Amino acid sequence: MLSLRRYFPIFDWGRRYDRAALSSDLLAALIVTIMLIPQSLAYALLAGLPPEAGIYASIAPLVLYAIFGTSRALAVGPVAVVSLLTASAVGQVAVQGSAGYAAAALSLALMSGLMLLLLGFLRLGFLVNFLSHPVIAGFITASGILIATSQIKHLLGIEAGGHTLPKMVASILAHLRETNIATLVIGMSVIGFLFWVRRGMKPFLLGMGVPPRFADILTKAGPVAAVAASTAAVSVFGLAERGVNIVGEVPQGLPPLTLPALSPDLLGALLMPAILISVIGFVESVSVAQTLAAKRRQRIDPDQELIGLGAANVGAAFTGGYPVTGGFARSVVNFDAGAQTPAAGLFTAIGLGIAALAFTPLVHDLPNATLAATIVVAVLGLVDLSILRRTWNYSVSDFAAVAATIVLTLCLGVEIGVASGVATSVMLQIYKTSRPHVAEVGLVPGTQHFRNVLRHRVETDPTLLTLRVDEALYFANARFLEAQIQARVTEGCRIRDVVLMFSAVNAVDYSALESLEAINFRLRDMGIRLHLSEVKGPVMDRLKRSHFLDELTGEVFLSQYDAWRCLRDERQSAAAE
Amino acid sequence: MLSLRRYFPIFDWGRRYDRAALSSDLLAALIVTIMLIPQSLAYALLAGLPPEAGIYASIAPLVLYAIFGTSRALAVGPVAVVSLLTASAVGQVAVQGSAGYAAAALSLALMSGLMLLLLGFLRLGFLVNFLSHPVIAGFITASGILIATSQIKHLLGIEAGGHTLPKMVASILAHLRETNIATLVIGMSVIGFLFWVRRGMKPFLLGMGVPPRFADILTKAGPVAAVAASTAAVSVFGLAERGVNIVGEVPQGLPPLTLPALSPDLLGALLMPAILISVIGFVESVSVAQTLAAKRRQRIDPDQELIGLGAANVGAAFTGGYPVTGGFARSVVNFDAGAQTPAAGLFTAIGLGIAALAFTPLVHDLPNATLAATIVVAVLGLVDLSILRRTWNYSVSDFAAVAATIVLTLCLGVEIGVASGVATSVMLQIYKTSRPHVAEVGLVPGTQHFRNVLRHRVETDPTLLTLRVDEALYFANARFLEAQIQARVTEGCRIRDVVLMFSAVNAVDYSALESLEAINFRLRDMGIRLHLSEVKGPVMDRLKRSHFLDELTGEVFLSQYDAWRCLRDERQSAAAE
Repeated sequence: MLSLRRYFPIFDWGRRYDRAALSSDLLAALIVTIMLIPQSLAYALLAGLPPEAGIYASIAPLVLYAIFGTSRALAVGPVAVVSLLTASAVGQVAVQGSAGYAAAALSLALMSGLMLLLLGFLRLGFLVNFLSHPVIAGFITASGILIATSQIKHLLGIEAGGHTLPKMVASILAHLRETNIATLVIGMSVIGFLFWVRRGMKPFLLGMGVPPRFADILTKAGPVAAVAASTAAVSVFGLAERGVNIVGEVPQGLPPLTLPALSPDLLGALLMPAILISVIGFVESVSVAQTLAAKRRQRIDPDQELIGLGAANVGAAFTGGYPVTGGFARSVVNFDAGAQTPAAGLFTAIGLGIAALAFTPLVHDLPNATLAATIVVAVLGLVDLSILRRTWNYSVSDFAAVAATIVLTLCLGVEIGVASGVATSVMLQIYKTSRPHVAEVGLVPGTQHFRNVLRHRVETDPTLLTLRVDEALYFANARFLEAQIQARVTEGCRIRDVVLMFSAVNAVDYSALESLEAINFRLRDMGIRLHLSEVKGPVMDRLKRSHFLDELTGEVFLSQYDAWRCLRDERQSAAAE
Repeated sequence: MLSLRRYFPIFDWGRRYDRAALSSDLLAALIVTIMLIPQSLAYALLAGLPPEAGIYASIAPLVLYAIFGTSRALAVGPVAVVSLLTASAVGQVAVQGSAGYAAAALSLALMSGLMLLLLGFLRLGFLVNFLSHPVIAGFITASGILIATSQIKHLLGIEAGGHTLPKMVASILAHLRETNIATLVIGMSVIGFLFWVRRGMKPFLLGMGVPPRFADILTKAGPVAAVAASTAAVSVFGLAERGVNIVGEVPQGLPPLTLPALSPDLLGALLMPAILISVIGFVESVSVAQTLAAKRRQRIDPDQELIGLGAANVGAAFTGGYPVTGGFARSVVNFDAGAQTPAAGLFTAIGLGIAALAFTPLVHDLPNATLAATIVVAVLGLVDLSILRRTWNYSVSDFAAVAATIVLTLCLGVEIGVASGVATSVMLQIYKTSRPHVAEVGLVPGTQHFRNVLRHRVETDPTLLTLRVDEALYFANARFLEAQIQARVTEGCRIRDVVLMFSAVNAVDYSALESLEAINFRLRDMGIRLHLSEVKGPVMDRLKRSHFLDELTGEVFLSQYDAWRCLRDERQSAAAE
């Protein structure tokens, strides 16, 4: 029963479900449904898919996440960055608009879903740790710029292509003369209106005496108003005949049962994008879920989140959708509107199902420029170049990771951008730990403490060299330690004993073990003994499994003070003889 | 002058050169020259190059290393593993025996040389730290097996190909029926003789009353005796006409001036192999040099070693050679024979120059099987499968890195093998540090020390949670810390204050900073304050460059005891009011 509840959190909250939660959830679902209709159409456009794919991707995935997910407020569906990744991946294997394109998007959702499920069952969520915050921030910012640029063609009513910034800009410039003025006017008006909705509408309504809660709901309905007004304008003025691209026929009905394409070549080509979508989607979703859970002192389980998102993506693959994840904007709206349990997601799914059944004819005359405008306004919130300044102030290596990710994502594409960011941050981390702080220490007079000889007035002995290493020893710094000791020993020609103080050494891997053995033998060849002091329990346990302690020319002292006292006594008795 | 001496160590030892050093160096050069003649021919065979390439690769590189290198005893030239890497890389871009093949080998030496020089001037030697000892050990062992297997065709006198173990074995089995019996007899006799030379000859000579020093020199001349005897056998019995493959015509003369091929396609194809040869060659060379330097309490400078090896490879590229590095066997012989300075290398180069001018007709009838036999006997010493057992006993993650390297090198080739080994060890290192030890601590009664509540009897307070994190905080463990704190705080519902004890936190990168900020805000949303204690100086300096300390809901305490006392007093006075 416990494991059933672990894998099906719905049994946990479902048993305590009551009327109060029901009414909160119903209200939240209504607000989110109104917000999601234009958003889903817009993200499908961004992904290069027919508009209904966006609606379908918000139905089954919401139901499945409600069953398997652990966050009370997360809303799952198409999001901007994952839609961009889908367009970039599927665009490489199929022509946009073809049947193969939609089928490849389903395959991508299936692969991504299966990967997330696998990571969840194997409890391998730690793999997302390879993405550092600067890499994610850089990637999201660069994606926002790419997405906004990709919508310019819809705002101008021209044909243009490209998946990198230079190619997109070149393509737009080449077709600039074909701009459709009516389209441009619609697009710019909607952008202007939406910015006003975001910044000026709520204060305006409050000034008019509208109650705050109602003003809030009206503000969220802003995009719907833009959709309604621009659709009406197209119908009334017959703008479709003047070259304004519209959404057109959207099939009426519930999500169909679809089968992803499964040819090995296709799956091979989509493997890397699927990994990227899984990881980026999971990271975005988990950070939203954690932030919202903390506000109500709730917990989410990251490994179970992998299962919830995995199930949602598998669901999208079989119901005409495309890859989905937990979205920031929709989740915050859901949370603010008072959603108490994942049942709010179930109700939203029902709302969208009704919309798909009954309301799709209403969007026939909706101009693509309106959808593009809603995307542009939404993603400009993702663009945050201040991360460059903030990391620059904090540390150069974090800045390097951000800058590499942004520049390479913009110029070479999303996959190379993220991969380079990960590689950069891993390499810099290894570089930073490859040159650990090694301090020569001496005894602080009148105490049993040993401190850095360069910073404190301490007692030392010319025949004894004591070094404190401030880092776990592993392959990246093993050779550095060898070189450091060799250098210091050849400088002090009277040295007879070397003590390595291990108080800050949290681990010793096999490379470091071999380096310690080499150091031991090289010192022996010079007639110098090697000792250790203050070795931590887990490190000592490991060393005991090797021959190192048998071969060690000196001793292992419990404390550095013991080492000092014992070696000094030994020397004095030798001198007395 | 100092910088001149830094880049030209020859000015350092050259000024103090005397008659005693001269005679030691001359004797060492004589012994090494005798040993190198068959070895150079054999490694050229392994690299798929004409025999003279091996001799040429031992002349200019020795001279250049003597000028720029810092080791007193290192002998530079063709070595087994680098020859294998050359064969594998050049075999992918040209047909063995063609002019393009030799030119590509020169290009490989040039690229590798320029890379080493660049790394040396930029002092980027740390990059080799990405190769952990288990990866190197696994790679050397797998290379030994590949090299020995690649020589079987010469021992059988058959044609066979392949660069991976399964392909080589399949190819040998397919051609097994074409075995030339005379070749097989020569090969097996030489292998048997060389093993006897290694194991039984010295005791035998000592038993005959030969003085130890002379017995030593005779033992080192063993391969030369095998070369002479098998060459004589071929000449006397006319075995070349019976299908025994022989070395044949070797041009007489000093190394020619050669120009590497420089087409962009070729250089692109050789880029990854050149990186691999540079790194593997440098690592092998530096560890030999460090071991020998320590025996005489001397130092080597790894960054200057990059320059020495780089110059040697550039030299090889323009004098008909191929990639070279410092060899273990030849350096040990040079050291044991008494070489005092790099001048021994200069004299060896002169000896090999004389051999190239005068003695090449002598090896016309030398059977390839003899050379293959010397390679097999030499490389079997590299094969050490005990590394699997030793790492298994010490730590599973090191074992995984060795096993992956060995299996993938044998089955998929040298480049994929090393790359996978590096990726495995880096990922395991990040995994290990991604779940740091986080202990809840309490006050040891009667002291000011705080210890783990699970291991010690300590005082705690239900409204105060104190956690000690035993690892530097960076992107790989930042999210883990967030989840840990969230989990512990939701368990203890009376908690009002959380103190993070930073005594073992050596660093906080930008990802960890953002996680700390997120933790701070989430705790604030729960009505809990966050405090830090015992923050190290460098970490505090960095935190001060961000807004974190301004936003922190609690305080930064100098010591954990201060935090305990202050928070307890505050609570008591609040309770009293």
